[in-house]
Amino acid sequence: MGQPLDQKTADLLGRPNFATVSTLRKDGTVQGVVVWVDADADGNLVLNTAEGRAWRRNVARDPRITVTVPNAENPYEFVSVTGRVVHEDHESADAHIDAMAKKYLGQDTYPFRQEGEVRVKLTVEPDRVTHFTGG
Amino acid sequence: MGQPLDQKTADLLGRPNFATVSTLRKDGTVQGVVVWVDADADGNLVLNTAEGRAWRRNVARDPRITVTVPNAENPYEFVSVTGRVVHEDHESADAHIDAMAKKYLGQDTYPFRQEGEVRVKLTVEPDRVTHFTGG
Repeated sequence: MGQPLDQKTADLLGRPNFATVSTLRKDGTVQGVVVWVDADADGNLVLNTAEGRAWRRNVARDPRITVTVPNAENPYEFVSVTGRVVHEDHESADAHIDAMAKKYLGQDTYPFRQEGEVRVKLTVEPDRVTHFTGG
Repeated sequence: MGQPLDQKTADLLGRPNFATVSTLRKDGTVQGVVVWVDADADGNLVLNTAEGRAWRRNVARDPRITVTVPNAENPYEFVSVTGRVVHEDHESADAHIDAMAKKYLGQDTYPFRQEGEVRVKLTVEPDRVTHFTGG
């Protein structure tokens, strides 16, 4: 159970800003990928991916993750969250990706779903939250 | 000496797109920061920071770095480069940050320079380059 996100961070994550998700490969290098991101009421970040993707396999092996989100309207402002994947959920993952499609695309249903794809919702509990306001 | 970047990656880096730079903290977690980025003619990425910054200290200890750059006009397209900082240069760093100010701000001189700041130019040789075109 974390503490709620500060208001500026919650605002940034509430808008359709894209996140760079950084995970650790087996060889210790960092993998980077750009994805949608959400926050929950408990101050966690929520991500959604498909089984089999490289970064999803990375966090299955090592739950440490860093999520960096620039404000698309002013990239000199960004938030970076370092934490751990503390919960994985398949059951609610399809409804959640539809909700993210609403947020990012204004569509009721996620339009990029692929045949046979198994979605997974990942909850990230923050250990450090840094908010930069640039310059 | 690497090989030249592919054309689509070079185009993405040639435009004023912002990079998320991921480096490794002493404790093994990833630090994320959003910065300007450039490429050189030898297929390397070029970054510019100030002495004392956390991520600069990280790469001084462990040169492994991942640079992820979404296309600001279409964030479903992005490139992610994993490599190593192979060269550090103070001498050309001030001229280089001015050149980046031209690219990103259309200004001849970097306007965010701080009193006493020592700039350093970091050259990153790619080991892996991945270009995603999204969906």
